[in-house]
Amino acid sequence: MSGNTLGKLFAVTNFGESHGPAIGCVIDGCPPGMALSEADIQPDLDRRRPGTSVFVTQRSEADRVEIVSGVFEGRTTGTPICLLIRNTDQRSKDYGDIAQSFRPGHADYTYWRKYGLRDPRGGGRSSARLTAPTVAAGAVAKKWLREQFGTTFGGCMTHVGELAIGFESWDHVHANPFFAPVADVTAIEDYMNALRKSGDSCGARLRVTARHMPVGLGEPVYDRLDADLAHALMGLNAVKGVEIGDGFASVAHKGSMHGDSLLPGGKDGGARFASNHDGGVLGGISSGQDLEIAIAVKPTSSILTPRASLNIEGEPVEIVTKGRHDPCVGIRATPIAEALTALVVMDHALRDRGQCGQARGGLGLE
Amino acid sequence: MSGNTLGKLFAVTNFGESHGPAIGCVIDGCPPGMALSEADIQPDLDRRRPGTSVFVTQRSEADRVEIVSGVFEGRTTGTPICLLIRNTDQRSKDYGDIAQSFRPGHADYTYWRKYGLRDPRGGGRSSARLTAPTVAAGAVAKKWLREQFGTTFGGCMTHVGELAIGFESWDHVHANPFFAPVADVTAIEDYMNALRKSGDSCGARLRVTARHMPVGLGEPVYDRLDADLAHALMGLNAVKGVEIGDGFASVAHKGSMHGDSLLPGGKDGGARFASNHDGGVLGGISSGQDLEIAIAVKPTSSILTPRASLNIEGEPVEIVTKGRHDPCVGIRATPIAEALTALVVMDHALRDRGQCGQARGGLGLE
Amino acid sequence: MSGNTLGKLFAVTNFGESHGPAIGCVIDGCPPGMALSEADIQPDLDRRRPGTSVFVTQRSEADRVEIVSGVFEGRTTGTPICLLIRNTDQRSKDYGDIAQSFRPGHADYTYWRKYGLRDPRGGGRSSARLTAPTVAAGAVAKKWLREQFGTTFGGCMTHVGELAIGFESWDHVHANPFFAPVADVTAIEDYMNALRKSGDSCGARLRVTARHMPVGLGEPVYDRLDADLAHALMGLNAVKGVEIGDGFASVAHKGSMHGDSLLPGGKDGGARFASNHDGGVLGGISSGQDLEIAIAVKPTSSILTPRASLNIEGEPVEIVTKGRHDPCVGIRATPIAEALTALVVMDHALRDRGQCGQARGGLGLE
Amino acid sequence: MSGNTLGKLFAVTNFGESHGPAIGCVIDGCPPGMALSEADIQPDLDRRRPGTSVFVTQRSEADRVEIVSGVFEGRTTGTPICLLIRNTDQRSKDYGDIAQSFRPGHADYTYWRKYGLRDPRGGGRSSARLTAPTVAAGAVAKKWLREQFGTTFGGCMTHVGELAIGFESWDHVHANPFFAPVADVTAIEDYMNALRKSGDSCGARLRVTARHMPVGLGEPVYDRLDADLAHALMGLNAVKGVEIGDGFASVAHKGSMHGDSLLPGGKDGGARFASNHDGGVLGGISSGQDLEIAIAVKPTSSILTPRASLNIEGEPVEIVTKGRHDPCVGIRATPIAEALTALVVMDHALRDRGQCGQARGGLGLE
Repeated sequence: MSGNTLGKLFAVTNFGESHGPAIGCVIDGCPPGMALSEADIQPDLDRRRPGTSVFVTQRSEADRVEIVSGVFEGRTTGTPICLLIRNTDQRSKDYGDIAQSFRPGHADYTYWRKYGLRDPRGGGRSSARLTAPTVAAGAVAKKWLREQFGTTFGGCMTHVGELAIGFESWDHVHANPFFAPVADVTAIEDYMNALRKSGDSCGARLRVTARHMPVGLGEPVYDRLDADLAHALMGLNAVKGVEIGDGFASVAHKGSMHGDSLLPGGKDGGARFASNHDGGVLGGISSGQDLEIAIAVKPTSSILTPRASLNIEGEPVEIVTKGRHDPCVGIRATPIAEALTALVVMDHALRDRGQCGQARGGLGLE
Repeated sequence: MSGNTLGKLFAVTNFGESHGPAIGCVIDGCPPGMALSEADIQPDLDRRRPGTSVFVTQRSEADRVEIVSGVFEGRTTGTPICLLIRNTDQRSKDYGDIAQSFRPGHADYTYWRKYGLRDPRGGGRSSARLTAPTVAAGAVAKKWLREQFGTTFGGCMTHVGELAIGFESWDHVHANPFFAPVADVTAIEDYMNALRKSGDSCGARLRVTARHMPVGLGEPVYDRLDADLAHALMGLNAVKGVEIGDGFASVAHKGSMHGDSLLPGGKDGGARFASNHDGGVLGGISSGQDLEIAIAVKPTSSILTPRASLNIEGEPVEIVTKGRHDPCVGIRATPIAEALTALVVMDHALRDRGQCGQARGGLGLE
Repeated sequence: MSGNTLGKLFAVTNFGESHGPAIGCVIDGCPPGMALSEADIQPDLDRRRPGTSVFVTQRSEADRVEIVSGVFEGRTTGTPICLLIRNTDQRSKDYGDIAQSFRPGHADYTYWRKYGLRDPRGGGRSSARLTAPTVAAGAVAKKWLREQFGTTFGGCMTHVGELAIGFESWDHVHANPFFAPVADVTAIEDYMNALRKSGDSCGARLRVTARHMPVGLGEPVYDRLDADLAHALMGLNAVKGVEIGDGFASVAHKGSMHGDSLLPGGKDGGARFASNHDGGVLGGISSGQDLEIAIAVKPTSSILTPRASLNIEGEPVEIVTKGRHDPCVGIRATPIAEALTALVVMDHALRDRGQCGQARGGLGLE
Repeated sequence: MSGNTLGKLFAVTNFGESHGPAIGCVIDGCPPGMALSEADIQPDLDRRRPGTSVFVTQRSEADRVEIVSGVFEGRTTGTPICLLIRNTDQRSKDYGDIAQSFRPGHADYTYWRKYGLRDPRGGGRSSARLTAPTVAAGAVAKKWLREQFGTTFGGCMTHVGELAIGFESWDHVHANPFFAPVADVTAIEDYMNALRKSGDSCGARLRVTARHMPVGLGEPVYDRLDADLAHALMGLNAVKGVEIGDGFASVAHKGSMHGDSLLPGGKDGGARFASNHDGGVLGGISSGQDLEIAIAVKPTSSILTPRASLNIEGEPVEIVTKGRHDPCVGIRATPIAEALTALVVMDHALRDRGQCGQARGGLGLE
C-alpha cells in the first residue's frame, strides 16, 4: 500500500496540496450505524485552524468540512467516508521566491530530489495544512471510541522553546491560544512576542493522553500499539522525537522502580496499577492505564532570518522566507497529535475485535 | 495485514516463541540475484546472541540460522526467504513461578488480557528472543543496501543507566561487550557489576546511524522514512523513546540555528549540508545525510528484587523473577536496532524504486 | 487495508454513492512527472457514461471529472491524485418503493444484513455508478503504460444474452453503442429492442485484451497477475465468471495441444509463441504475449417484470423496479473491464520495478 | 505487501521450493483459544498428497506437518502459527534436462524472464507442491469456521478432460481417487489409463461449495467476497477460469429468471431463497446461501509428448518432460480449492467482525 494511508482497518487516505483546490481524506472501514455529521468534526478542525491568534499563521482558512460520502440520514453506512475541505486563501504569490531554492530544514529539497519536481505553492504536499484532513478523520475516531469505551483524548503544550510550562490542569488548555495547561500564560505570550519580533521560530514539547483506554489493543511483535503511535506521531510535520510513558527518563531508571506494580481493585476484571511509568502500554499491548505520550516539535523552517542555501541550479543563495508562517508550529500541533493518537487506537480497536472478538482474560476468570 | 509483518515490499514476517521448537522469519520481496549464504547472516546473530559475556543472560543458544528457501546455488531467487533458528536451550522450569502471576512492567499481563491465554515459557512470544529473526532479516537488507548504495549501519550504547558513556570512536564498539564507543570500559563494568549484585536492572540509551544513505526514500504524508523508523524502533522490546536527529533537544532550538544550511559541493547532483540537526530526514524523505537515531531502553522487568503484583486469580502476590535475564537489555539491543533501521531503509528503497524509478531531481538538472 | 482500495503500489481508493453529492477516487503511488489533465481521463468516462443510447440507462450524468490534487503545472507530482465527479441527476424519488424491500438478485439484501442499514437511493454504494471512478483511475494507468511500454487495452462484447456476436475487427467497437466488434449490429439492436419491450434484462460476455505487454509482471504464489486480474474483474458489478486465455475450454484440452510452443525470433531478448492458449500469463507472470480475458456479466436485477421478494419486516411482497436501468449492464461494462485490467497491470508494473528493477533474463544473456 | 501472503487479517505467508529442504507457511492473525494440533491438519494434507494412486504423481512425500509456533498446550495463542513440511523425496536429477530450456505452457520461461534466474529442481517455486502449505493453513481456517458458524466446505471433480462426470452425491467423493461425486468411476479410470498411455495430460473442471455460510462477508467495492474467491482460486496453479453461481451460463439468462427470489421462513432473521443462481454472493457480500464455485484447470504442461521450444540461449530445442508428473493436475486440486475457499471466507469473517462487530440487520428487526 502506498504511503498516504494511515491504518489498516480504519484506513485514512489523505490527499491534497496547500494551495490546490481542496484537501481531504477518505476513511475506509468505519463501523456502520454511528450518528455523524459535520458538526461532530468541525470543532476539532477549528482548534487546528490558522488565524485564530497572533501567535499562529495569519492565513485565513475557514476549514469547513464537507461529508461527501459514507453517511446516510445522519448515520455512517460502513462505506467510505470522504471528507473534503476547500482551500479558500491561496495567496501563492507569497511563495514566488522559494520556488527556485530550498529552505534549510524544509522538505523543499527532498521532494525535489525524490520526485524530480514539486508544487512550491505554500509547500504543496509538504505543508502542515495537510494535517487538517487527519484532524477531521481523528474526530470520527474519537466519537466512536468515546461511544464504545468512553475513551477520551487530551493534548497540551508543556514546553515552548526553552520555556517549561508545567502542568496545572487540563481545564486551562481550552482557555488560551497555546493549549497550555496553566492559568497564567503571560510568560508564554512574552516569549512568543519576543520570538516574533526577532523573526525567528522555536520548538515545543507536547503531551498527549488517552483516558479510559480499552485493554488488549496492539499486535506484537511489529505492529505494537506503541510502535504504531510512534509511527503516527513521528509522521506529524516537524516532530523529531516520541516518548511513551517515562520515555528517555527510563534510561536512568532501575527496574525495581520502573515496573508498575499490579494491585487488586481494578475494574472489569482488570488490575489497578501503583504507577504508570510505562504509559499505558506493556509488550506493545494496551494495559488499560492511560496512554501517556510526549513529542518534540522542531522550530519552523520558514523564517525571516536570512540563511545560506542553494537554488535548484546548485548555486549558493541567501534565503529569507516571507509569507505567513507559524513561529512555533508546535502550538497548532496539539489537536493534530490528539487526532493521530485517536486514529491509531481506533484502528487497533477494530483489529483487536477482528482477531480476538470479545474474548478477554479477566482476573479470576478463564 | 496482521501485526507480525514489517515492511511492505521487503516484508519480514516473524514467528516463534522463546521456548518453542524454533523461531524464524520469512522475507518476501527480496530482489533476485544477490549472493547470499548463512555466513552473511550469522555474524549479526552472533553479536545479538545471549551468553557472550557475564553482563547478559546466560542462556546458551547457538542461534544458528538455516536458510530454508529463496536461495538457489548461492543467489536469491526473488521468492520468499525463510530463515529458521532452532531453540536448543529451553530450561522452562525456570519460569514455573511466573506462569500464574504477572511481572510488573512485563507483557505477561497484557498478553493474558488480550488473548485470554499465554505461553509463559520464557515469556513466550513477548520474549526479546524474537528479535533474533529480525536481526537475521536485517543482515540480508544490510547486504543489499551496501552493494547497491554503499550504505552502512552502526549502533552503539551512549548511556547505561545514569552513566553517560560519551563517544570516542566507532572502532571501539566491537572491542567490548557493551557496544560502547570508548576505549576504556572500566566504568561500565563497575556499574554493571554493582547492578548485578543488587539484583536490579537498568535502562540504556543507544545511537544508531546509517551512512551513505540514498536520497529520496520515504513516502509522505504518513509513511515518512522517520515515521517508519520510529515504528520499527519503538517496536523493539523495552524501547520507550525514539529521536531522529536532535530529537527532544530540538524543543529548545531556534529555527535560525536548527535548519541545516545547504552548501554547494555535494556528490551526485546533491547538496552538502553545514550541519545535521535533522538527522538525515527532511519532510519524511531522506536527504542523503547520515541517519541519526537515538532510542531509550527501559530497565528489564524480570529482576530478583521482590515486588507487589497479582496472580491470574486477581490475588496479591510478591513476585521475584529468577532464571536467566539480562540486567540491561539495552546492551544486546544495539545490533537489533541496526537491523530494524536497515529493514526500514531497505523497504523504502524498493518502494521508491517502484514508484519513482531512477528519475531524480539533481541540482542543475531537470 | 479495508476493502475499497485496489492495488498496492498504484493504489486506488474509491468513494461515493449513486445519489450522494459526488463520487470519486484517490490514486496513491502514481509515478511523478507524467503529463496529465482532465482531457486524458474524460474520453474513457464518456465511453462508460449513461444516456448515450436508448440501450442504456437514461440517467443524464455529464460525469465531468475534476483533478483535485496530485498534478502541478500539468504534471503528476507523485502525491495522491484525487479525482472527483459530481453527481448532478439524483432523481431519487424513483427508488422510493425499493427502500423497504429487496430486489431479487440485488445487493439490497446483503448490504442491509451486513451493515444493518443502507442508502437505498439508486442503490447507494452498490450502484454500478461507482465504476466511474475506476474508469477514471484506469485512464491514468493506461496513459503511463502506453508511454512506458506501448501497452494498449481493448474490450468488446462477444455475446449479448443468447446472441453470439462474433469477432470481425477492433475497428468496429467504437462505431456502435454495444462495443461490438462487428460492422452490422442490426441483430443486436433487434435483440435489445425486444428485450426492452419485454421489461426484462439479459447477460453478456465480454473480451478484454492488453497488447504490447511487458514481460515479468505478477508475484507468485498468491498475487499472480492472473489472480489479481480475476480479483479485479470478478469485483465488477454483476460479473459471475472470469477466464484467462482459453478459460473453461481448457478443461477439454490435452497438454500436447494446450501448451504454447516457444519459437525463436521474438523481440527484446524474448521468445515468440506459436499460440496463446494461456492468454499471456504463465505461472502467474506475464509472458509478453497479449493478455486475453473473458468475463460473464449476469442480467440486471432491476427489471420491470414482477417478482416475489420480502420487505425489511420479512413479509412477502411483489417487487417491480421502475426507474432508469440498463437492460444489459454488460454493454457499459466494456470500458470498465478495460480500466480494471489496466489498473492491475499498472500496479504490477510498479511492484515488479520495485523488487526486480531492470534486471531481466533475456534469451542468450545472463 | 509482497505477493506471497494471502489474506489481510488471517494472513498466510507461503515459503519454500519443490526440492528445497522444506516448505511451509506462517498464519498470522488466527484467533486465540482454538484447540489445534497436527491431527487437525494432516487429513487435508493427506488428501492432497502425491503418490496415493496411479493417477497422480508417484513422488513419495509423507507431507508430515509440524506446528512450529503459535500453539501452547494444544490451543492457539493468537500469535503466528508456523507450519513446516520437510521435503523428503528430492530426486532432482529427473529435472536435469529442463534446467536449460523452457517447457511450453510452464512457468519456466516467465520465472527466468522476471527474476533472471530460477530454481529448476522440480519447478522450484512454481511447483504445485507449494499448495501443500495452503492446504495446511486451510485446515486451520476450516476448523475455526466450523466451530463458529458450522460452515463446511466440499469440493469435487465434475469434468475430466472431455468426460463429463455428473453429480450423484457428496458421499462418493471420498470413496475414489478422483474426488468424483459418482458411485461408478470406471469411465474415469478408463479415460485416465488411456491418457497415461498416450504420454499426454488433460484438464478438469471442479466444483467447490461452502454450506452454512455466515451472512454479511465481503467488502465492496473492490474486496468483494466473490472477487477475493476469484483471486485465490485463479491463483491456484493451472487454473484458467473461475465461476461463481451460474457463471458463464448467466450470459444467456434473463433477469426475470436469474434473480433469486427471497422467501419468508429463513433462519436467524434471514430470508430463504427460491434458487441460487448467484452462488451465495450478492453485491460482493455473502447472502447466507451456499457458496457455489467452479474452476477450470488446464492440462499439465510437463508431458512425455515431444514439443518445440527454446533453451536459455534462445536456440530451438525439442522438449520431453520425464520425471514424475500428474497427468491431470485437476485431480489433486480439489482439496486445494476447498482450502483456498476456506481461507478467503475466514479472512472475511475476521474483517467483518472487525468493522461491523455483531450488529446485523435481521428481517423485522432494526
